[in-house]
Amino acid sequence: MAQRMKLVIAYDGAPFAGWQSQLHGNTIQDRLEEALRRITGERPRVQGAGRTDTGVHALGQCAHLDLDTARFTPQQLQMALNAVLPPAIRIMRCQSVAGTFHARFAATAKVYRYRLWNGPVLPPTEFGRAWHISQPLDFALMCVAASKFVGRHDFTSFTANRGKPSRDTVRTLQVVRPHRRGHCLTIEFVGDGFLYKMVRMMAGAIVATGQGKFGLLEIAERLRPGGRRRPNMVAPAAGLFLIRVRY
Amino acid sequence: MAQRMKLVIAYDGAPFAGWQSQLHGNTIQDRLEEALRRITGERPRVQGAGRTDTGVHALGQCAHLDLDTARFTPQQLQMALNAVLPPAIRIMRCQSVAGTFHARFAATAKVYRYRLWNGPVLPPTEFGRAWHISQPLDFALMCVAASKFVGRHDFTSFTANRGKPSRDTVRTLQVVRPHRRGHCLTIEFVGDGFLYKMVRMMAGAIVATGQGKFGLLEIAERLRPGGRRRPNMVAPAAGLFLIRVRY
Repeated sequence: MAQRMKLVIAYDGAPFAGWQSQLHGNTIQDRLEEALRRITGERPRVQGAGRTDTGVHALGQCAHLDLDTARFTPQQLQMALNAVLPPAIRIMRCQSVAGTFHARFAATAKVYRYRLWNGPVLPPTEFGRAWHISQPLDFALMCVAASKFVGRHDFTSFTANRGKPSRDTVRTLQVVRPHRRGHCLTIEFVGDGFLYKMVRMMAGAIVATGQGKFGLLEIAERLRPGGRRRPNMVAPAAGLFLIRVRY
Repeated sequence: MAQRMKLVIAYDGAPFAGWQSQLHGNTIQDRLEEALRRITGERPRVQGAGRTDTGVHALGQCAHLDLDTARFTPQQLQMALNAVLPPAIRIMRCQSVAGTFHARFAATAKVYRYRLWNGPVLPPTEFGRAWHISQPLDFALMCVAASKFVGRHDFTSFTANRGKPSRDTVRTLQVVRPHRRGHCLTIEFVGDGFLYKMVRMMAGAIVATGQGKFGLLEIAERLRPGGRRRPNMVAPAAGLFLIRVRY
């Protein structure tokens, strides 16, 4: 009897070429599918909730897969996968789900966190996990800038896929919230979906506002239909974490 | 005019063979001395507050060095070192100090933190930075065990240098305090000095108590002069952080 499993996956993005399967095989999806082949003898396809780019981390990426047989309990599959996978990829949870569950199409929201280190020296423990900005940032301005993204907008100006404006580029964000604690500055993003490089471009625009490079009207202008399309500042991948997928 | 500089150094211990200079050159001290040679043309010796073993991390190791000339302000030296050193070693602070200051002999206390991850799966972000214990730990017992170390004791049973008992193995600990937050469990150690592998052996004994492998009398027995000398559990290097050196 076929069995659908849902995985919650954490990974350090640094050693991998992103989520999505590629010919060279060094992606999170490839490593998962290879581990499943070794464990089950089957060749299940792993369907993720969404792709993450090279260097982007995850604390709670989600995926589903189908096994032909019910030989494994979820706990057995989790333990077997963690025994075979590199320590940079961990299965945090595994559960049996209905055959109608779909990791990508059933997702109702995603939570991302962008991390910045705003101090003179980047501690070694933050290397590869935060964007280092040594100059002072105007945190109050960053909060105002972040609030401009909340709501339903056409995010054409905040994606690297510059197609023609269409409903495909409309997304709704519930939360865009900067938080500061000492030198560590995070920006949390909650939305129904995110376009290619959209979080990193929003983080880049919020930081540019905090640095005085963008005026406060800049973001609203870019979100306006037909607004100016000037180059964006793209925040580096190393600071981005996929925190959770909601269903 | 000669100038003595004090450095506060943070490092990720994973890629290095500990603090202390060695022939192969892949230690923190070697990297610092090499960077100083490149920057100043001089060959100053870097004197650390103490050694750390292979894999042990630091947020606030201290060291001093003498430059023959006063060509560099402390800030210039810090920036130049951070430009030349690998990102896994960072100079957090640099200041000019009196020629009588000595990083090792002037130290009055050291603060270490041992980190444990007490949950079923070790997140990728904790790999190399915590000791993974998946079985439940009795936190209350660990707190009692930790308290036994506080005060002035002969730590012969808690060092890998098993010489004859002498005053050299007597140390005074001000604080040994476990702290729990979710799956992350830390033990803070503050003392006037620590013997070789002493913190890792104390952490091992506290964890062994929390696992029920050591009775509550075990630690007191080992600290008693002439007490039993059974093998210790040595906690792995990856969980240990030198937090601060006090002067």
